Amino acid sequence: MALKTLSAKAAAALDKELMSTGAFSIDQLMELAGLSVSQVVYRVHPLDKGSRVLVACGGDGLVAARHLRHYGYQPTIYYPKRSKSDLYQRLAKQLEDLDVPFVEDFPSALKSTDHVVDAIFGFSFSGEVREPFPAVIKALEETKLPVTSVDAPSSWNIEEGPPKSGVGSSFMPEFLISLTAPKPLVKHFHGRHFVGGRFVSPSIAKKYDFEVPEYQGLDQIAETSPTGQKL
Amino acid sequence: MALKTLSAKAAAALDKELMSTGAFSIDQLMELAGLSVSQVVYRVHPLDKGSRVLVACGGDGLVAARHLRHYGYQPTIYYPKRSKSDLYQRLAKQLEDLDVPFVEDFPSALKSTDHVVDAIFGFSFSGEVREPFPAVIKALEETKLPVTSVDAPSSWNIEEGPPKSGVGSSFMPEFLISLTAPKPLVKHFHGRHFVGGRFVSPSIAKKYDFEVPEYQGLDQIAETSPTGQKL
Repeated sequence: MALKTLSAKAAAALDKELMSTGAFSIDQLMELAGLSVSQVVYRVHPLDKGSRVLVACGGDGLVAARHLRHYGYQPTIYYPKRSKSDLYQRLAKQLEDLDVPFVEDFPSALKSTDHVVDAIFGFSFSGEVREPFPAVIKALEETKLPVTSVDAPSSWNIEEGPPKSGVGSSFMPEFLISLTAPKPLVKHFHGRHFVGGRFVSPSIAKKYDFEVPEYQGLDQIAETSPTGQKL
Repeated sequence: MALKTLSAKAAAALDKELMSTGAFSIDQLMELAGLSVSQVVYRVHPLDKGSRVLVACGGDGLVAARHLRHYGYQPTIYYPKRSKSDLYQRLAKQLEDLDVPFVEDFPSALKSTDHVVDAIFGFSFSGEVREPFPAVIKALEETKLPVTSVDAPSSWNIEEGPPKSGVGSSFMPEFLISLTAPKPLVKHFHGRHFVGGRFVSPSIAKKYDFEVPEYQGLDQIAETSPTGQKL
């Protein structure tokens, strides 16, 4: 089976198409994406493994943290560069109303958590890791805690994978969720891989030449090999 | 345990508060509400009982039908009075893109389905059942098919329950999902009852004096007695 991945450019075009001709709102897509992320955490890190989850955001992370809170987890949010977008502000407020704490010091927060969600950069990341994130990536690289990355391990190039040297070059999370479809970087990922975002129509998947995974039951996620094959 | 229900007035105030101080968008709330409805159908009518589901809409119904389609059901939509709201139009478009058929003749569609979702009127219904809905309610009243109603069996008064006489007076669906909290009409409901909408914060529930049910695992729904007690 051929490797079916979505380049950064194709993923951006797909997102745009979902919100134009597809008629989805960003609120809807973000809600369903974040719900998928929360389901991966529940699957790979059930509550009896420890309820503390440190979520480094990103919008999908804000939504995921809210669902995790409702499942009974104790999320903590690291969100140093707050977006001015109305949606992101509302998602943050929804967490504040659930008494979810926001922290400033990532390496220190890492010392009192059981699982980490890395939703810092998404599929639109390229270029350099800017402050304050080099220290965060370094901490993610060094931690022994399980990490779930969203769409890309932060600092990785969407097409090329991990940086050749420096911060992030040895970052390998245990878990990765690709939203809608894997990106080319999955070739470099060694761990458990999930696809999420159960809202893609067969016609859209065909147009962008990727496979909708075989979701089971009510699941918003499907575990696949990093190349998209069913496990 | 006291009966904890939300009057139509309180439910409207709660919705308003979720979207103002609660910072939720209508898109988000509708998505999560519709997701809950789809999970009730999956629970009470698994695919092996027959995959055809006739959904009489309502916005929550449009969202539920999309999720049902992704679970493998074959929904059909009855939606005679299309809302002009941008959101509702987008939700309908999302179904069209999944090749979900829209039908005009409800009694006839009833002859080729396995389950019915009644999302015609919500908790804001009061007064008279207007055309073309009397014939629809009558068909729902007479059908032997299992029906899941959303928030209220259509034609029922939110406070008082079924009409004393005429159309709807003997309408008793098998299943009811109350979104956020049961309404007073549940006192008159005899069937399996669910609560959905896993987004209510404990502080909001306290303010409106209802209990958030004990959701399990990833469930967006919890089965309770019509009075809200855990089963």
